[in-house]
Parts: sequence; C-alpha cells; structure tokens
Amino acid sequence: MSWNSFGRVFRFTTWGESHGPAIGCVVDGCPPGIALSEADIQPWLDRRRPGQSRFTTQRREPDQVRILSGVFEGRTTGTPVSMLIENTDQRSKDYSEVARAYRPGHADYAYDAKYGFRDHRGGGRSSARETACRVAAGAVAQLVIPQVQVRAWVESVGGDAIAPTNFDEAEIDRNPFFCPDAAAAARWEERIDAARKSGSSLGAVVAARATGVPAGWGAPLYAKLDAELAAAVMGINAVKGVEIGDGFAVADARGEDNADPMRPGSGGATPDFLANHAGGIAGGISTGQPVTLRAAFKPTSSILTPVATVTREGIATEIATRGRHDPCVGLRGVPVVEAMMALVLADQMMLHRAQVGSSAVEVTTGAG
Amino acid sequence: MSWNSFGRVFRFTTWGESHGPAIGCVVDGCPPGIALSEADIQPWLDRRRPGQSRFTTQRREPDQVRILSGVFEGRTTGTPVSMLIENTDQRSKDYSEVARAYRPGHADYAYDAKYGFRDHRGGGRSSARETACRVAAGAVAQLVIPQVQVRAWVESVGGDAIAPTNFDEAEIDRNPFFCPDAAAAARWEERIDAARKSGSSLGAVVAARATGVPAGWGAPLYAKLDAELAAAVMGINAVKGVEIGDGFAVADARGEDNADPMRPGSGGATPDFLANHAGGIAGGISTGQPVTLRAAFKPTSSILTPVATVTREGIATEIATRGRHDPCVGLRGVPVVEAMMALVLADQMMLHRAQVGSSAVEVTTGAG
Amino acid sequence: MSWNSFGRVFRFTTWGESHGPAIGCVVDGCPPGIALSEADIQPWLDRRRPGQSRFTTQRREPDQVRILSGVFEGRTTGTPVSMLIENTDQRSKDYSEVARAYRPGHADYAYDAKYGFRDHRGGGRSSARETACRVAAGAVAQLVIPQVQVRAWVESVGGDAIAPTNFDEAEIDRNPFFCPDAAAAARWEERIDAARKSGSSLGAVVAARATGVPAGWGAPLYAKLDAELAAAVMGINAVKGVEIGDGFAVADARGEDNADPMRPGSGGATPDFLANHAGGIAGGISTGQPVTLRAAFKPTSSILTPVATVTREGIATEIATRGRHDPCVGLRGVPVVEAMMALVLADQMMLHRAQVGSSAVEVTTGAG
Amino acid sequence: MSWNSFGRVFRFTTWGESHGPAIGCVVDGCPPGIALSEADIQPWLDRRRPGQSRFTTQRREPDQVRILSGVFEGRTTGTPVSMLIENTDQRSKDYSEVARAYRPGHADYAYDAKYGFRDHRGGGRSSARETACRVAAGAVAQLVIPQVQVRAWVESVGGDAIAPTNFDEAEIDRNPFFCPDAAAAARWEERIDAARKSGSSLGAVVAARATGVPAGWGAPLYAKLDAELAAAVMGINAVKGVEIGDGFAVADARGEDNADPMRPGSGGATPDFLANHAGGIAGGISTGQPVTLRAAFKPTSSILTPVATVTREGIATEIATRGRHDPCVGLRGVPVVEAMMALVLADQMMLHRAQVGSSAVEVTTGAG
Repeated sequence: MSWNSFGRVFRFTTWGESHGPAIGCVVDGCPPGIALSEADIQPWLDRRRPGQSRFTTQRREPDQVRILSGVFEGRTTGTPVSMLIENTDQRSKDYSEVARAYRPGHADYAYDAKYGFRDHRGGGRSSARETACRVAAGAVAQLVIPQVQVRAWVESVGGDAIAPTNFDEAEIDRNPFFCPDAAAAARWEERIDAARKSGSSLGAVVAARATGVPAGWGAPLYAKLDAELAAAVMGINAVKGVEIGDGFAVADARGEDNADPMRPGSGGATPDFLANHAGGIAGGISTGQPVTLRAAFKPTSSILTPVATVTREGIATEIATRGRHDPCVGLRGVPVVEAMMALVLADQMMLHRAQVGSSAVEVTTGAG
Repeated sequence: MSWNSFGRVFRFTTWGESHGPAIGCVVDGCPPGIALSEADIQPWLDRRRPGQSRFTTQRREPDQVRILSGVFEGRTTGTPVSMLIENTDQRSKDYSEVARAYRPGHADYAYDAKYGFRDHRGGGRSSARETACRVAAGAVAQLVIPQVQVRAWVESVGGDAIAPTNFDEAEIDRNPFFCPDAAAAARWEERIDAARKSGSSLGAVVAARATGVPAGWGAPLYAKLDAELAAAVMGINAVKGVEIGDGFAVADARGEDNADPMRPGSGGATPDFLANHAGGIAGGISTGQPVTLRAAFKPTSSILTPVATVTREGIATEIATRGRHDPCVGLRGVPVVEAMMALVLADQMMLHRAQVGSSAVEVTTGAG
Repeated sequence: MSWNSFGRVFRFTTWGESHGPAIGCVVDGCPPGIALSEADIQPWLDRRRPGQSRFTTQRREPDQVRILSGVFEGRTTGTPVSMLIENTDQRSKDYSEVARAYRPGHADYAYDAKYGFRDHRGGGRSSARETACRVAAGAVAQLVIPQVQVRAWVESVGGDAIAPTNFDEAEIDRNPFFCPDAAAAARWEERIDAARKSGSSLGAVVAARATGVPAGWGAPLYAKLDAELAAAVMGINAVKGVEIGDGFAVADARGEDNADPMRPGSGGATPDFLANHAGGIAGGISTGQPVTLRAAFKPTSSILTPVATVTREGIATEIATRGRHDPCVGLRGVPVVEAMMALVLADQMMLHRAQVGSSAVEVTTGAG
Repeated sequence: MSWNSFGRVFRFTTWGESHGPAIGCVVDGCPPGIALSEADIQPWLDRRRPGQSRFTTQRREPDQVRILSGVFEGRTTGTPVSMLIENTDQRSKDYSEVARAYRPGHADYAYDAKYGFRDHRGGGRSSARETACRVAAGAVAQLVIPQVQVRAWVESVGGDAIAPTNFDEAEIDRNPFFCPDAAAAARWEERIDAARKSGSSLGAVVAARATGVPAGWGAPLYAKLDAELAAAVMGINAVKGVEIGDGFAVADARGEDNADPMRPGSGGATPDFLANHAGGIAGGISTGQPVTLRAAFKPTSSILTPVATVTREGIATEIATRGRHDPCVGLRGVPVVEAMMALVLADQMMLHRAQVGSSAVEVTTGAG
C-alpha cells in the first residue's frame, strides 16, 4: 500500500519523484491566522538543499518553494497549504544500468517486488529528494508550536563522535556538518573528504532536542509521543535505529541509575527533574523536560565499489554508482529530523488540545 | 489525546486499567473463516503471564481470555473479535502513597499533567498489564499470516549479552529468561536473583526475527514497514530504543561493509542475499529476507531504593516501591514484541493485498 | 472490510452479535474529568430498549450497561471507556430456517457473499441490537457537549405525518411512538397495532434537531458536518434516506425562496437568521442555528407474509418471519439518531478545538 | 478542523481556492500498472467544465489537468498521483462587497465564524471549483474498477421531473442538462433560460446508478457502503439530501411492498432479484444489484434579487450577486456525483480485497 500522509490532525501528504517535473506536499489541519509566506519555509529548505558544499551530492537544485493555496493576505486560512518545488537538475543521463540491475541497499528490488515495476530514474519515489517536502511541511509545523524549539545536530560520523564537553550549539551552523564540536568538525572534514574521493560512504548519528514542550503532550497508548517520534524518524531514508533519551544505554543500567528524580520546582508550582534519562517522555506523555532522541543513518549504498547483484531477469552482475551521491547522507538528515520532530509535536499539541481543551495548564519543567 | 487503537486495516483497540474489573481488546478487520478459539490465544498469554517464576512480578493473574464476539462455529466471521481478561489479583492494598507522590520513571506525573488526575491504582492505564491485550491481539494476527514465523528472545540483561555462537533457538523456551544461550541463562539467573533480592532492577535487550515475510510488504512513505515496527515496539512500556537490522552499528560502518549483495536465487526466480544488514527492509518495503529488530527495555523504575520526588502539592519527599514488581521487565517484553511484530505484519499484508490484489507474487528470498 | 469504529478524535468501537454472550463498545478520546456512571447512560438505553410496549419487538433485554474502564472515582480519566451489555434473552430457538435460506431485505445474502458464511442467529452482527452500543456511546458524547441539546422524534409512520402546528416537544415522551403530536399518536396506535396483528410492518420518518451548536463546527471539505451526519445516520439499520434542513424540498425551490437572510443579532454581536432552510449548516460548517435532519426508515423486512427467496444452495423457496419483530422499527430509531448526532457533534467540537484552540468564540445565533 | 482527504485505502486529498493560482489533488493508494495519462482524465473534467453553454456559469476555465507524479512510462507506479489544474479566469474584479457582507446561503459567515477570516475571492476554498479535483480523482478511480459503470443524470429541475417511461440513457449526453428524457430537456431549456435571465436559480435532483458492483463490497458497521456514499454525496456543494434505492419512499411503504424477493439465478449459481428497492445494498454491503442513489441540489444562493444580510461588523445591509453564476448548479453536479461514487466504490473494492483476499468470488446478480 502506498501511504503518503503523516499525522492525525496536523497532517501532510507528499508526492513526487526524483526525476519528475516537481515534488510537493499538502499540509492539512493547520490552524488559521498564522503569518506564512515562502520566506518562512525557504531557509529550512536551504539547510537541506544539496550541492552547497563538496560534502553533499552535487545535484544542484534551487529547491525554491511555491505556496499554491491556504494562505490569504499573508496568513493561513485554516485550509490546505499546498507547496510545490520544481525539479530542475534531473540530468538526462542514461539510467539503463539502474533499470537493468538492482542496486543493493537501495529500494530497487523491494519496489519491483511490490509493484511489478518502478520509476528507476534517480530512485523515483524512494529518493531522498522527497525529504525536501518533509522539511517544507516541518517549517509550517514550527510556526504552529512557537513555544517549542527543535534543534538537531550530527553526533558522530563513521564512528568518530563529538566530545560532549565540546558541545556548543552555536557551532552547529558554522560548519557544513551540523557539528556542535569544532574539533570534531575539523576531523570530519578530512574523513568525509577521504570517503568522497574514494567513492565510499560513511554512516552517522544525528541527535535532536526539543525544548519548550510542555508536560502533557502525547497519547496513551497507541499514539505515544515516543512511538510517534520513532515512526517519524525511522521513516526517514537511511535511518536504521532510533533512541529516546538514553536509548540503548538503559538496557545496561540499573533502576537506581536510570531514575529521573524530582524536586520542588524552583520557578513555582511545577517540579524540577534532576536527570533526563527518559528523554522527556514517560508513559508516552511529555514531562516538560527537553524531548531528546538519536537516529542512526546508514552510509549511503551509492558507492563506487562494485557490488554483486542481479538483473531484473535474475542474472548475476555487478553494479557501482557513478552518479552524484552523498558521501555521508546523515549530514542532510539534520533538517529532516528537525522537521519530523516539529511535525509530530504540532500534531500532538493539537490532539492534546482536542481532548483537554484550554483547561490544560501548559508547563515546562526544569530540565535535568 | 487518548489513542487506544493500532493498525490501519487490521486494527485492535485495547481498554482497561491495572486494577479495574477487567481489561480487554477488540480486534477489527480480521479475515473471515480463520479457525479461532480461546485455545489459540491462551498459550501466548501464558508466556507473558506474571507470577510464573520468581523472576517476574508476584502478582498472580490467570489471564484467562474469553472471546465475546466475532467467532461462530469455531471460525472468525470477519466482524470484531472482542476479548476480555478479568483482573483477579488486584490487591486491596493501600495506594495512598502512590496517590500522594509521583514515582519517578513512571507515568504518574505525566498523566497528571495531561489529564489533571489519574487512576493511580497499580499504574492504572499505564500499567504493563495492558500488554496482555496486545498479546491476545497478536495471537489472532499470527493466524492471519501463517506463512510468517515471529520469534523473539532476550539478548542481554543488565549489560550481560549472549554469545552469538551459542545461539540455540530451542533453548529459548527452556529457561524463564527467553534466553537462547544456556550459559548466559545460568549467569542471568544469579544476576536477576541478586537484583530482585536487593530491590533493584535491570535493563535488557530483546531481539526478534520474522521469517517467511515475502518481498513487497510495506508502504512508501509514511507507513514504511520499519517505521510501523518502530512505532509498535517503541510504544511498548519501558522501551527506549529500537533498531532494524544492524541498527546503530550502521552509523559506524562504510558503504562497502553495509551492502547486502545479491546473487541469483538458488531456488528459482528470486534472488538470494549475501548479507542482511538491512534487517529485511529496504525503502520501507520487505525484501523477502528475515525481518530483524532489537528493542532496549529500561530497568523498571519500581525499586526499593528511595528516590527523591514531590507530592501532588509540590512538596519534596521520597518514594520507594514496596509492592510486587519485575526485577527485569524486559523478560516479559518478549511475547509483547512478538505480538506487536505480528500485528504490524498482518496489517501490512492486508494493506499490500488491498493495493496490489492477488497479482502480487509472494516470494521470500534466501537470507544472508 | 470490517470497520467497527466511528469518529476521528472522539471515537467509539462496537462489537458483539445479537445472540452472543454480550455486546459492547469502547469510547476513546473522551475528555477527562467528566462525571460519569452507569446512571448517566442507562436512561438513554432504556429509551431504546425493546419489549417495553406491544409496538416493539418482544425480545426482553434489560440492557443493563456496565462500565469496565476509563472512570475513576466517578470521573472520566481520559482513557478508554469500555461498556458492556449482556445478552440475556437470546432464545434457544431453531435458526435452521434462517441458516438455510436468505431473508430478502435482510443482510443475510450480502454477508454470505462477502464473508462466505455468517452468524445467522438473530441477524448476528447486522442485528439492530448493535444500536444499543451506539446509544451508550452517544450518552457519553452528550456529556462532552453539554451546551448542545439533541432531540429526535417520529414525524410520520407509514405515510401518516404529524401536523406541524400540533408539534409539542413535551408530548414526545408521553407516548410509545416518540410522537410530538398527540392526535397523530392516537392514529399511529391503531395503525401500528393493525400492522403488528397482520404481521406486516411500516416505514417511518425520524426528524432531529440539535440546538446550542455554536457557529464554526465542521470541517471543509471531507469531514463536513452535514456529510458526517449523513454517514452517521445512513449507517443506522433500515435508514435509506437522509436530509439536512429542507432536504429534497430544496430541489423544487428557487434561490429566492431558499435563502436564509441574516439581520443584526438581537442579543449582541452575532447575527440572527430569518429562516433555516439550510438546517444550520453552510459549507459543511455550523452557522449557529439549530442543526436539523430527517431520516427515512424502511419497514422491517421481518414479516409474516412469505417472500420468494433462495437457499444457500440456490434452490427456490419462500421465507416468512415467525419470530419477534418490530412492526415499525423506525420508532426505536429515535434514540439511535440522537446518539449518532451527539457523537458526530462531540467529535466535531473536539476537531474544531484541535485546530482553532480556545481562540474560537463560540456563538449560537438566533434561529429562523 | 480542515479535513481535505477522503477515502480509507484509496484516498485523495484536494487543495486550492477559487482564485488562487491553481487547484489540485493527490490520489494515494492507487494500484500499480494501470494505464493512465491526462487523456484519461480530461474528458471527465470537460463534462464538468463551466462556460460550455449558457446554462452554466460563464467563467471560462480550460481545466487542463497535468499529472505531476505517480505515472511512469504510461502506467501508475503505485505511488501518489498528483494532479494540477491552473486557474486562468479568476477575474480581477472588485470583491470588496463579498468581503464586507455575508452572502446568505453561502459559507461566508460559517467560515468567518470558524476561522476568524476567510479568502473571500470567489468563495475561496468553499467554491464549487474544488469539485474539478473530485472529478479528476474520480477519473482515476474509474480505472481502478473497470468492472463497474457509474452513470448519473438529472432527474428533475425546479420540480419538473423526467418521465420514467421516457428514460433513454443515450439521451443523457445529447443535451446540456444530462437529461435522459428528450421531452423534459426541451422544457428545462426554457425553464433554466428563464431563471438565468431573471437572475434566479433552480434546484435539481441528480440520480445515479453503478452497475457491475459485485456482491460483497462494503463494511459493517461504520464504513457501510451506503453510509460512505451518503457522506460522499452529501459533501458535494449544494447537496441537502441523499437517498439510497427507494429513499424516502420507503417510509411510506409496508414490509410486503418493500421486499426484494430472490429467485435462483438464470445465469448460474448466483440469485436474481425481483426488485431493487434497497438500491443494491443490504446491511451496508452490496448485493450484486445496481447501486442506486439520488441527491437533492439546492438552487445556488447567488441570485440577482437582493437578500437581507449583515456586514462583518454586524450592520444590516443587502447583497445581490452580480457576477457569473450557475442558474442550476445541480447540472454540473452530475459528473461530481459520478466521481464520488467511483471513489467510494474503488475504496471499498480495495478494502474488501484487503480483508478477504482473492478468495472472494465476485458476482453480480440479476437486477430487479
């Protein structure tokens, strides 16, 4: 089944292939009266845009977004916001090799197995190009929850991690790696350059934090905030693992070490927490602490080294990627993770408001 | 928002609190004509049932399931299957302490923040007791996809992992830890006993594998098989991390090492894979390889050691759990993970059938 | 596909067959803190209950509802409210005739065509008995929107209509026909008695009005308030037509006659309307006027006169209904229509709140 | 809440305003491998297109559809089909009057009450222009269920009905009124002309019939085929009533007269029906007979006669429509009703296939 919509009340639907005339998305359920123009969306797209440094694919797309509906006199009307991004740099190269044989690690074989055939040009619908639509929708979501700040960064590249003590949020935007550790950024430059030159690729871990999420968002039991975030992030191309809070480290911990003790809040009625192992979520509901997660991005499967594969007819062959590709696709995952977090949180805010109304006291608690 | 239904066409809805008269679930969308009786469900519930060894909570619940609808003359009719499990051992103990102060690590504070109050008896709706309903629903799901075998086990307890070379599937059911490594099981017995005696608790990793999943199940782009599994598993009580295939290890890998090369299938038209780093899913669609995942369970927050907390009125206090609890709640997560996998897979099978019909050739491929 | 849930954020799921051990429903998404006990639901069920007069089926069911979850210390907790009603008068009569041949006008053949077989005892899942669950869920919905009063009545029986000038709301509860016209009620008594004695049955029109619905509920474009009401009411057993406002009469009207002119509101900022042809809904959104609708109920197909039919094997035969039945099933539709209206309106209130928040000014306008 | 998606597995989402740059829709869930190009959709749009005769609004829109995604080498890929229609004739007229005062009978006041403001240009999102998107989506749906033929026509205009004995399906496309009765068409020409010249408007009844629907489509209990059709049709602009089969006439009937007797099928295993009062649906499930429905369209509220209204500030005023309008908007409802029926039926076919798989024997029965 094709399922190209996400969200329960704040919803978006994306469409488009890597090499079609355009891609786009429709954001439905957006509250009315929000100031919105292309200028609110473009900066987010620009962060994800390929071709900006030698560390990402050299496909050059302006990714200029156009709003086609849902905005009147500069404000959202409450009706669907349709956004369109033209594809301009879909090279008329020869795709016969990709059409002929399955690229291991890509969705080629799976799509064929599902649908009997596929649009093989540049990965078609399974291309990471689709994530531009998520970023555009996420930019709208950010405006729906102005009280929340979502921030993601790269935590490790090919196994080389940042030093937590070096973490400097301001550094994230100063290098092409979304790296909050200047020393690590310098190392990564060499590392990614080497991978790029040798036609190899590197995995990465992206971490994210949403601050300003009040206690009480989320939904017992099958729209838990952590479950929704897990789906949102695992659904991003190349992601193979998701952690909330301490993630897999909790499996090695004892109960005493994993507790997030509480104390009377310094600022008033709401408590403070002395730790945040839980990543700001308990029982699927936000606690008022920062919501934190991590995602593992695999190294892109588009590499120069030939890999054994088969043709559509089942004949043994090899395939290598000669086209443009990302040496570390996780880098461009940063704005996508931010977008998906914002989309989940906006949806959950609205769901919470639906059930509880304005009687809900929105509080954020002192973080651990 | 309360959201107690899961699934898109094969759906289930659960209800009930830890200390109410009963818990239950309604399975909707089940294909007609499937032989079904309580005897098909009870064995799955018995695997999850508490009080069977000293390594799980001593609450003694027979967890006897009763089918109230949707079955006629021993076969499903295609209408909703309602199942009910009575609560029999909800002790009339004094809950005033839990009512008064928030248990850190539990959902107490989050529920209060969301709803203004909560059923505090035994955790109310956030109790792991709800997972019995998932297991019952999962037992039905298993019957919907008889071609698929779902198997989960515990891979590590408190940081002590099995040796992959010792893996013996038959061993899983021979010890109370769902441990496939007899040597590890022996170590865990001591380890968990020690935790239990000291009133502490241990985290665990549960791993799972579904074999027999044909290539082509899944849904681009927002109901990807891996995203659905991630939501399903992250939504289980105490889970803080989910991995598909190699999971976080891919972040440290290079593209050459992470490929799953293909070769002409030994058995006929479908290819074989030389590895399964991807966990049987590419582009959100199954590849015909085994679908594999891992989940990190935190140590239960119910421990004897007092933890700093606050009362509902915001006064500083301490709380310790004197009641029955699981020293390693991950153990009982095994049948729950299996159930959630089966539920996702049954749903995706039906979604695939909806879109593609019987023209879909169902193939499973040689695993790596 | 079996689809036994209704609603988008305020949702309910029903289960159970006419002759199973019980029927029930799960209401999900209910706001927390609402005072709720069986005593709030039972009166609504009692209005629908069979066997109360000779004008309805003689099956005697106490329809005693039991709340199994979602309520703590007398208030809703925000988690699912599970309600159960036992079947007590499912006679152990011989169903072999119904099993053998299809009753024309019933769902027998359609169910068999869909599922290959069916629970034929008393209509199984297609029995009007299921509507008890709708009424129970509707009683909860009523509590969610206390500002709204939903009222239904019978407007005609077998073509004999009330006189609009005789309309007296207080009369509705004074006769077993939910008839607001005392003179018509007297006529209907004879008419229905005659039908009952001759083993025939009569159709009916049920009308309903919801007052207190503020302007602004509803959802452009595919969850329009009128479309949702149409689905809710058309989905009630035996309903074959639904009208909003003037309904089919508008097809004969001219634009000048069908306008609902507006004038400055007597009571303040909101306008008054000089007419309500539209039934309180424009563009799928409530206008603040009373929301009005009508539903056509067919005469039940259970009659003494033998009707030509076929057996499951395709052999020509005849069938007549010898069991208990309703001579005018539309009568018992009154509380069901009320319930479905309340359920739609509660859902739409919550959806509106989700998108617009508390900034929405809730106003009701002077009715035409 | 804004809710611009329709369908459960075969889904479409529409966007766009009357006077924005474009309108469009995204069809999701479409089976793969269906031959599809703009040429398959354009003829359906042309039937709905305004400005083709003096009997519809004189707005001239080519309504040229462009497919932007989901089709590769002439066939659907199973991924979303995005379609876009540019608005070309949105006149730069002065909308200040509509902005200033509410047009009674239009959605102006309701939208303002809901959202606080609205795009008033040409009705914005509530314009009937949106129905072009439904027709485009419906054209795709038709291709998904080639075994089904959906046909609609106008049955009465301003109270002047066709003579059933004159019904000639071939006539429908020979006049600009979709009228199957040549004599009635001649009368309507005069009638509509008169209304047009006097600046008045007329209501209409549209009838529709889907043949080739096999027995077994539909969904107990809250996605009943008739309930889905009712929502689909009631949600079309200007519709105020929906009937399935005999509709409101059943309320006047007796059980003996309303039965659809069955006899052994002439053609083989499946039965024939001697009548079709039920409109091809029993218990929410198709019976294999033609599915029939009727819809009441109100006269458009855009008339020359001034109507009392209020300004946004609540001041009494009058408003008349001087712009282009449809003297009988029901005429253009014909292709929209067909589209909505096709969309519901395609969705239900796929839902049925999801639950029952290929084991379902698809049969159509002899019609009454």
